[in-house]
Amino acid sequence: MKDVTAALLVIGDEILSGRTSDKNINYLANHCTAVGIRLEEVRVVSDKEDRIVDALNVLRSSYDYVFTTGGIGPTHDDITAQSVAKAVGVELLENRQAIAIMQARYPGEELSEGRRLMARIPDGGELIKNSVSGAPGFMIENVIVMAGVPKIMQVMLDDVTPKLRTGRRLLSRTFIIRHPESTVAPLIGKLDDENEGISLGSYPYFKLGKVGTVIVLRGVDEEQLDQVCLEFVAELKREEKDFEEDCDSTELKPLSFD
Amino acid sequence: MKDVTAALLVIGDEILSGRTSDKNINYLANHCTAVGIRLEEVRVVSDKEDRIVDALNVLRSSYDYVFTTGGIGPTHDDITAQSVAKAVGVELLENRQAIAIMQARYPGEELSEGRRLMARIPDGGELIKNSVSGAPGFMIENVIVMAGVPKIMQVMLDDVTPKLRTGRRLLSRTFIIRHPESTVAPLIGKLDDENEGISLGSYPYFKLGKVGTVIVLRGVDEEQLDQVCLEFVAELKREEKDFEEDCDSTELKPLSFD
Repeated sequence: MKDVTAALLVIGDEILSGRTSDKNINYLANHCTAVGIRLEEVRVVSDKEDRIVDALNVLRSSYDYVFTTGGIGPTHDDITAQSVAKAVGVELLENRQAIAIMQARYPGEELSEGRRLMARIPDGGELIKNSVSGAPGFMIENVIVMAGVPKIMQVMLDDVTPKLRTGRRLLSRTFIIRHPESTVAPLIGKLDDENEGISLGSYPYFKLGKVGTVIVLRGVDEEQLDQVCLEFVAELKREEKDFEEDCDSTELKPLSFD
Repeated sequence: MKDVTAALLVIGDEILSGRTSDKNINYLANHCTAVGIRLEEVRVVSDKEDRIVDALNVLRSSYDYVFTTGGIGPTHDDITAQSVAKAVGVELLENRQAIAIMQARYPGEELSEGRRLMARIPDGGELIKNSVSGAPGFMIENVIVMAGVPKIMQVMLDDVTPKLRTGRRLLSRTFIIRHPESTVAPLIGKLDDENEGISLGSYPYFKLGKVGTVIVLRGVDEEQLDQVCLEFVAELKREEKDFEEDCDSTELKPLSFD
């Protein structure tokens, strides 16, 4: 089974000015990990066409999929659809199916100019359903265009995911070590080196005045992962470390960094 | 006064896997806006040397400053310092001042191998103080290297900021419009077009079952900004829109998107 890779392009001045705190990166990252897509890069760019087109062209040729969030509303700074059309080299056209969706959503009212703009889709794009507010996202070639509002992004992601290829799921095992990171660094460096296909991540935490380290072992081969975990446990015991083993769980326990 | 630009490079597999939710992008974005540095791009890459070096080289030649967060701890996956040294083309050396800081921090204990690693700084780099946990960041050329743990990143940012050039502060005025975004889109598009130097951002919100729009006007020239705000208010009144004017505040009110 081949690995499937992706990048996320977050579009919006409001993220770069600090006005809005992005909520989509972490959501999409977790989603990708859960379904077996490896998120390899994220970029945040401003609402400028050349910035968006340049980033799209680099990312769509480097990864299997490029997700975008933001910039598909009805205002002058919503230029994602036109930028994607330009990058892909197709026309931006009023989409009949999108117009029908908008008309069904706003029955009786005439479609305003602003709302009509949201029905413009790059020629050949396939619509992504927005059950929150109507105006659809779209997928064209390997580019998946979604809204920036988290709730809308999330329903769009649910709608498009069944259409995507996925690879092997990355499995993980978590250990809590009640010692500073530097004291376990040599051991985990050694295990990481010696076991191709298994990566060890190390995350210090400070909690209730205590310093400790979360170690996460990750790999796609469950048998190998369990084997390396056993070896890790044996070494921790040999070094008389105070640790909490959590080998049965694929859920990661987020620990406070505060 | 010249504008000063920056990019942020977030380094870490844990952000891309979803294990850790980044807290530094928004903090740094707000900080930059407050001090007069324009954050123009953010990238998130994994703990791989070639990815870090490639991103650093593009960003440091494109912007006045590049901030990095993450990857300066004591473990095998902490490769930011060596990657920066490689990108800049200098050696990574044990820094005498950094060793002294670590020794003062851990008196009586011998400096462990792991902690010693954290004192390796690209040759010519200037240390950035870490009042939380000792191990310093550094600045070399226009690259500012900080920790990934938010509290540590924040004290490092405070330490390095007085050394940075800054430009004009971006001022902003916020309006809350109690109508869907599409109904104000034509007006704000027109104002944005007609006023070089002023940009209008439009952010839909859903709150207590109601749909509305936050409009933010931004610019560095206060007089011009106030003038465009007056024009905006006159137009909103002419169109009999229900809105809340907030012209006196440079604080942005975050509105819930939930």
